[in-house]
Amino acid sequence: MPLQLPTLPPLDTAAADAARARQASLTKPPGSLGRLETLAAQLAAITGRARPSVARKAVIVMAGDHGVTHSGVSAYPAAVTPQMVLNFVHGGAAINVLARQAGARVVVVDVGVAADLPEQPGLLRRKVAYGTQNFTHGPALTKDQAEAAVQVGLEVAAAECDAGLDLLATGDMGIGNTTPSAAIVAAVTGAPVAQVTGRGTGVDDAGLARKVAAIEAALRLNQPNPADALDVLAKVGGLEIGGLAGVMLGAAARRVPVVIDGFISGAAALIAAGLDPTVTGYLIAAHRSVEIGHRALLAHLGLTPLFDLDLRLGEGTGAALAFQVVEAAVRLHNEMATFAEAGVSDKD
Amino acid sequence: MPLQLPTLPPLDTAAADAARARQASLTKPPGSLGRLETLAAQLAAITGRARPSVARKAVIVMAGDHGVTHSGVSAYPAAVTPQMVLNFVHGGAAINVLARQAGARVVVVDVGVAADLPEQPGLLRRKVAYGTQNFTHGPALTKDQAEAAVQVGLEVAAAECDAGLDLLATGDMGIGNTTPSAAIVAAVTGAPVAQVTGRGTGVDDAGLARKVAAIEAALRLNQPNPADALDVLAKVGGLEIGGLAGVMLGAAARRVPVVIDGFISGAAALIAAGLDPTVTGYLIAAHRSVEIGHRALLAHLGLTPLFDLDLRLGEGTGAALAFQVVEAAVRLHNEMATFAEAGVSDKD
Repeated sequence: MPLQLPTLPPLDTAAADAARARQASLTKPPGSLGRLETLAAQLAAITGRARPSVARKAVIVMAGDHGVTHSGVSAYPAAVTPQMVLNFVHGGAAINVLARQAGARVVVVDVGVAADLPEQPGLLRRKVAYGTQNFTHGPALTKDQAEAAVQVGLEVAAAECDAGLDLLATGDMGIGNTTPSAAIVAAVTGAPVAQVTGRGTGVDDAGLARKVAAIEAALRLNQPNPADALDVLAKVGGLEIGGLAGVMLGAAARRVPVVIDGFISGAAALIAAGLDPTVTGYLIAAHRSVEIGHRALLAHLGLTPLFDLDLRLGEGTGAALAFQVVEAAVRLHNEMATFAEAGVSDKD
Repeated sequence: MPLQLPTLPPLDTAAADAARARQASLTKPPGSLGRLETLAAQLAAITGRARPSVARKAVIVMAGDHGVTHSGVSAYPAAVTPQMVLNFVHGGAAINVLARQAGARVVVVDVGVAADLPEQPGLLRRKVAYGTQNFTHGPALTKDQAEAAVQVGLEVAAAECDAGLDLLATGDMGIGNTTPSAAIVAAVTGAPVAQVTGRGTGVDDAGLARKVAAIEAALRLNQPNPADALDVLAKVGGLEIGGLAGVMLGAAARRVPVVIDGFISGAAALIAAGLDPTVTGYLIAAHRSVEIGHRALLAHLGLTPLFDLDLRLGEGTGAALAFQVVEAAVRLHNEMATFAEAGVSDKD
């Protein structure tokens, strides 16, 4: 069955205007809450509600493995991917801690881990393949696998929306996945590989050189078509990246705002925007990652991150932390007194 | 009675080392949580505990008025200061919303409002004077008033520590108070007035020109001694600024970390650091304010803000939002599984 993408609704400009009018009535100088004010208006535009809520929150963490790890591009062994998936399910990882703080549920999806994971609560087993192929030898995925990964994301997002959801974050786990992400950024933006490839979890200079060489070889060999997002995803992407692209499209189709994490979620956003550019209006960039390619990626999407705390962990950690900022924006919008209510004099 | 400053303890480097050792054992690549890792170590150094807690939080908002408002330096009438103090006490202001989100109490202190405020729960009436004098005609405060304002801050901080406090934020309310704050920055750092003076709550070009002229006149007339923080505070400062300087010193004396808000709290930090440079190790800069002088101020203190969300409201809003970041750092530090606990392979 070919991939059926949902139709994304246009942003609701009337709701955004109503939100801006409310902001102007609150007891503060106009504009003095900066990005917290524009966030409130964006959430209104996305949800169609002048007084949006973010009470029900979830982080969807997509996990997958990467054949390119055989080319020595990561500081950690691939065995860490399934180990960390179990850490997520048991609540011990950074994303669990930050999701608890934000009052968000964590949904962990095996879309492409190169190991069999036991059935257990909190883990969605939607494996498309046991990891990608090493893209220095050929395409990372078949076209069918790439479509299937996006389809998993669409379905997981739809199920989470059905369960009740006001705000979503995307996260990733996959040893080696800054390598396909950098390849996607280079393929889509046309930036030189060396300018968008960083150290990931912490490779040394030799590892970084191997990583750049592997990506350059993969682009030369596979020739992804930058105008065809599915082609880019299949040739140099990853299963969790495709899954996250599907999550973004699926949430946007249901008017649920999506806070995207760092470099891998950003690469997924490039794929999602290639499939439907309307999706970018539904995205909130959490943070600027340490990964050097993240800057070009965000510029290409036209997104400005909320903060830069030198994060480079992934898992959705930056996005879960950004939940606090989004929640602050919504609470201020809904709970602050107006000038009239508080009996405060407005500007001269 | 002359002002008695408390002795500030040195930072606990052993506790910081122990915190860094724990960070290295947690299931993440070393350094991948960036500022959240260094924050955890800083909190350990401040509190002397390798596993710090930030369960009990408070925002102290100091309010005062400014004679220089008669020189047309603000977009809002001075009557807004007492009106906003009542808004704080009734829970309708931005700081109340953000403090509720963070689970922090709000302590509002009238240290120099130019109006009589009714006695009511949640308001500490510690008025030193009915606002400052217009510093374009002479010193803003007498030396006794400046010392009394710092003393109020010391006492309020001590009382809050006695009530149980793990983390403190500073906030301000005072129509016109970006003007004395810019004057303090210019006096202490030696930067040209025009380079450190911004639009505050939103003055137009003519208002900004009046503001710069008023500060230049005040510095010329009063000749504050940059090596004498109390002299600077008295001649071109404000009562809430002195109060906040006292709060910072009082909290540091009790090993309680202080998250400082934007431009006015930063000016108070310059005064506090002038009184005892040890205090800067106890401070966490929440955000970079829109106020242009904030950059020079933070550079002078050697502090790097956690985020920049284009905030310029004051009240402690940026600091209360930063509570979420500090709490995230502490929760990650205390709650994440170690490599050994989770059975995850460490770096190759």
